[in-house]
Amino acid sequence: MTQQRYRDLAEWPLMATALVFLAAYAWQVVGRVEGSAGNWLEATMWATWGIFAVDYAVNLHLAPNRRQWFVRNLHELLIVALPFFRPLRLLRLVTLLSVLHRTVGETLRGRVVTYVASSAALLVFVGALAVLDVEQAAPDAKIVTFGDALWWAITTITTVGYGDLYPVTPIGRMVAAALMMSGIAVLGVVTASIASWLVQRVEDTAETAAYAVEEPLRAELSGLVTEIALLRQELASLRDGQPPQ
Amino acid sequence: MTQQRYRDLAEWPLMATALVFLAAYAWQVVGRVEGSAGNWLEATMWATWGIFAVDYAVNLHLAPNRRQWFVRNLHELLIVALPFFRPLRLLRLVTLLSVLHRTVGETLRGRVVTYVASSAALLVFVGALAVLDVEQAAPDAKIVTFGDALWWAITTITTVGYGDLYPVTPIGRMVAAALMMSGIAVLGVVTASIASWLVQRVEDTAETAAYAVEEPLRAELSGLVTEIALLRQELASLRDGQPPQ
Amino acid sequence: MTQQRYRDLAEWPLMATALVFLAAYAWQVVGRVEGSAGNWLEATMWATWGIFAVDYAVNLHLAPNRRQWFVRNLHELLIVALPFFRPLRLLRLVTLLSVLHRTVGETLRGRVVTYVASSAALLVFVGALAVLDVEQAAPDAKIVTFGDALWWAITTITTVGYGDLYPVTPIGRMVAAALMMSGIAVLGVVTASIASWLVQRVEDTAETAAYAVEEPLRAELSGLVTEIALLRQELASLRDGQPPQ
Amino acid sequence: MTQQRYRDLAEWPLMATALVFLAAYAWQVVGRVEGSAGNWLEATMWATWGIFAVDYAVNLHLAPNRRQWFVRNLHELLIVALPFFRPLRLLRLVTLLSVLHRTVGETLRGRVVTYVASSAALLVFVGALAVLDVEQAAPDAKIVTFGDALWWAITTITTVGYGDLYPVTPIGRMVAAALMMSGIAVLGVVTASIASWLVQRVEDTAETAAYAVEEPLRAELSGLVTEIALLRQELASLRDGQPPQ
Repeated sequence: MTQQRYRDLAEWPLMATALVFLAAYAWQVVGRVEGSAGNWLEATMWATWGIFAVDYAVNLHLAPNRRQWFVRNLHELLIVALPFFRPLRLLRLVTLLSVLHRTVGETLRGRVVTYVASSAALLVFVGALAVLDVEQAAPDAKIVTFGDALWWAITTITTVGYGDLYPVTPIGRMVAAALMMSGIAVLGVVTASIASWLVQRVEDTAETAAYAVEEPLRAELSGLVTEIALLRQELASLRDGQPPQ
Repeated sequence: MTQQRYRDLAEWPLMATALVFLAAYAWQVVGRVEGSAGNWLEATMWATWGIFAVDYAVNLHLAPNRRQWFVRNLHELLIVALPFFRPLRLLRLVTLLSVLHRTVGETLRGRVVTYVASSAALLVFVGALAVLDVEQAAPDAKIVTFGDALWWAITTITTVGYGDLYPVTPIGRMVAAALMMSGIAVLGVVTASIASWLVQRVEDTAETAAYAVEEPLRAELSGLVTEIALLRQELASLRDGQPPQ
Repeated sequence: MTQQRYRDLAEWPLMATALVFLAAYAWQVVGRVEGSAGNWLEATMWATWGIFAVDYAVNLHLAPNRRQWFVRNLHELLIVALPFFRPLRLLRLVTLLSVLHRTVGETLRGRVVTYVASSAALLVFVGALAVLDVEQAAPDAKIVTFGDALWWAITTITTVGYGDLYPVTPIGRMVAAALMMSGIAVLGVVTASIASWLVQRVEDTAETAAYAVEEPLRAELSGLVTEIALLRQELASLRDGQPPQ
Repeated sequence: MTQQRYRDLAEWPLMATALVFLAAYAWQVVGRVEGSAGNWLEATMWATWGIFAVDYAVNLHLAPNRRQWFVRNLHELLIVALPFFRPLRLLRLVTLLSVLHRTVGETLRGRVVTYVASSAALLVFVGALAVLDVEQAAPDAKIVTFGDALWWAITTITTVGYGDLYPVTPIGRMVAAALMMSGIAVLGVVTASIASWLVQRVEDTAETAAYAVEEPLRAELSGLVTEIALLRQELASLRDGQPPQ
C-alpha cells in the first residue's frame, strides 16, 4: 500500500479521533471531572494518543523516502512525543485544519476566507480550553470559568485586549502569544481578501478598457488577411488570363 | 404583484419602520423609561415588530420559489421570530444597511468607503445601545450610562480596548464580540481601499509605459496595410497595362 | 487679484501663524500659564484667530463662485467660527498638513508614507495637547502631565491601549476617538504601502516574462514587412522586365 | 583596501561582536549581576563598543567620499557616540538585521516574511531586555522579571495591550513606543504579503484568460505569413512562366 493511499483511507478515522480527543479534553477541563469519570476521560485521551502514534509509525513505514519524510515531519513527531504536556496535545487538532483546507469553497478567495474563519473559531475554542486548563489551578488566576476563557480568547485574537482577564502562568502566556499571532494572521487575511477583491474589481474595469484599445488592432489584422486573399485571387486571374493572350 | 415590485414599494416604509423602532428602543434604553410612557414605547416596538412580521409573510407568499426563498432567508425568520430577546431585535436594522449599500457614491472604492463608514457609525450606536440595555441591570456592571456605552463601543471597534469599561454579562460580551469583528472588518476595508488606490495609481503609470512599448507594433501594422494597398495598385496597373502590349 | 494668486502668497504667512498658534497653545496648556503671561498668550492666540478669520473673508471675497466656495468650505467656516471651544482651535493646524502634502517625496509611495508619518507625529502631539487641556482640570483625571498625555496618545494611535491612562471627560473622549481613527488610517496606509510595493515587485517580474512572450510576435511582424517589401520589388521587376519582351 | 572589501571582511567578526554584546547585556540585565562578575560583563560591553568605534573609524577612513558617507551614516555615529545611554547601545544590533536581510529565502515574499519574523523575534527579545534594564530600578515599576518583560513585549508588539504590565519610566515608554511601531510594521507586512499572494494568484488566472484571448490574433498573424509566402511563390512562377511564352 502506498503512503498516499493510506493517507486517503486514514483521513476520516483520524478526523473522528481528533474530535473525540477534543470532546474528552473539553469535558475534562470545563467540567473539572475527577474520580472514575475522570479516569475514563483520561483513558479515552490516551487511546486517541495511541491512534495518532500508530498513524505516525505507519506513515513513517510507508514513506517512499523515510529519512526525508522524518526530517520534513519533525513537528508531527513532536506532537506525538510530547503528550505529557497537556495543552500541547491540542496541537493534534491541526488535523482538523487540513481537512477544512480541502473541503470548502469554490473561488480562491472564498476558500481562504472560509478557511481562516473556521481556523479562527477553532483557535478561539481550543485557546480558551488550553488557557483554562493551565490557569484554573494557579493561585492568583483570573480566568477560572470557560465563559471567561472564551471571552478572553476573543478579546485576544481580535487584539482588543481589555485587560480585565489575562493569563498569569508561563504556559498560559505562551497560549496567549499563539492566539495573538493568529489574531494578526486573521486580520491580515481579512484585509488582504478585501484588498484583492477591490484590486480585481478595479482591474476588471481597466481590462475592459484595454480590450477596447486592442480591438482596432485586431480589426486591422483581419482586414489585412482579407486584403492578401484578394491579392492572391487577382494574381491568379492575372496568370490564368495571360495564356489566351 | 411580483416579489421584486413589492420590495421596491415596501423599501421606504420598512426603512421608516426601522428608524421608528431604533428611536423607540434608544429612548427606552437611554432614558430608562418606565410607567405609562414606557408602555407606549413598548407598544410602538411591538407594532414595528408586527410590520416586519407582515413583511416577512408577504415576501414568503410572493416568492417565485417559496422553499428556496425560505431556506436562503432563514436569518430573516430568526430576526422576526426572536423578538423576545431584546438586543437581537436590533438586527432588524440591517435593513438600513441594505439601503446605504444602494444609495451612495459613484466609484467602487467611494461606495465601499462610504458604506463601511456608515456601517461603522451605525454599529457603534447600536452596539452601545445593546450593551447598555443588557448591562445596566447587572449588579457589577461598569457600563451604566449611554455616554460610557458609546465610549466603550468606540474603543472596542477600533480594537484599542483600554479596559476602563467592559461588559460583564454573557449577552453583553456577545455584543462586544460582534463589535470587535466589525472593527477588524472596518480596519480591513480601510487598509484595502488605500492599498487598491495605491496599486491602481502605480499601475496606471506602468500601463502608460506598456502602451508606449506597444506603439511601434501598432505603427508597423499600419505600415503593412499601406504596403499591401500599394502592392494591389501596382498589380492592377500591371494587369491593365498588359493588354495594349 | 485672483484667489489662486492670493492663496500662493498667503500660504507661508498662514503656516507661520499656525505654528505661532500651536506654540502659544502648547505653552499655555503644558506650562499651565496664568496671570499676565497667560494673558499675553491668550492675546496671541486671539490674534492668530483674527488672521485666520481675515484669510477666510478674503478667500470668500476672491472666490470666482462665492456660493459654491462657501458650500464646499463649510469646514473652514466651522473652524473659524468656533474658537471658543478650545481643542477645536487646533483644527486650524490642518493648514500644516496641506503644506506637508505638497513639499515632500518623489515617488507616489514615498509621498504617501512621509505624509502619513508626519501627520501621525503631528496628531500625537496635538492630541496629547488637546487631551491635557481638557483633562487636567477634571476632578478624577488620569492624564495630568504632558509626558503622560504623549504616552497616552502613542498607545492610542497604535491601538495598543494599555488602559493605564485614559480620558474621562466627554471632550477628551472625542479627541481620543479622533486619535483612534487616525491610528486605523495610519495602520492602513503602512500596510497598503507595503502591499503595493510587494504587488509591484511581483508584477515587474511577471511583466518581464510577458514581454518575452510578445517578443516573437514582434519579430514575426517585422519579417512580414520585409517579405512584403521584397514582393513589391519582385513585382516591379516583373513589370519593368516585360516591355523588352 | 576598498571600503567594500573591508565591509565584506568585517561582516562576520562584527556579527560575532554584536552577539557577544547582546549576551553580556542580557546576562547583566536579567541576572542583575553585580560585583566582580558585573565588572567583567561591563568590561566586555566596553570592549564590544571599542570594536564598533574602530569599525566606524575605518569605514570613514576608507570611504571614497568621506563627507558624503559621514552625512549618510549619521545614525551610525549616534549609535557609537551614545554608549552611555544603556538601552540605546542595543541599536548596534541592527547589524544583525542587515545580515538577516541578506541570507534568507528565495522568493521576494519569502524573504520579506522571514526577515520580518526574525526582526519581530529579535525586537521582542531586545525590547524586553531594554525595558527590564530601565524599569527594574524604578520605585513603582510593574515589569521586574525577564518573564514579565517578554510577556509585556509580546502583548505590545501585537498591539493587544492588556495593561496588566506597562512601563512607567520615560525611557521605558520610548522603548515601548518603538515596539508599538514595529508591531504596526509587522502587521502591515503580514497583511501585505497575504494580499500580494492573493492578488497574484487571482491575476495568474486572469492572465491565462488574457493569453487565450490573444491566441487567435497570434494564429491570424501566422496565417498571414503563410499567405504571403504562397503569394511570392505564385508571383515567381508567374514571372518564370512568361519567358517561354
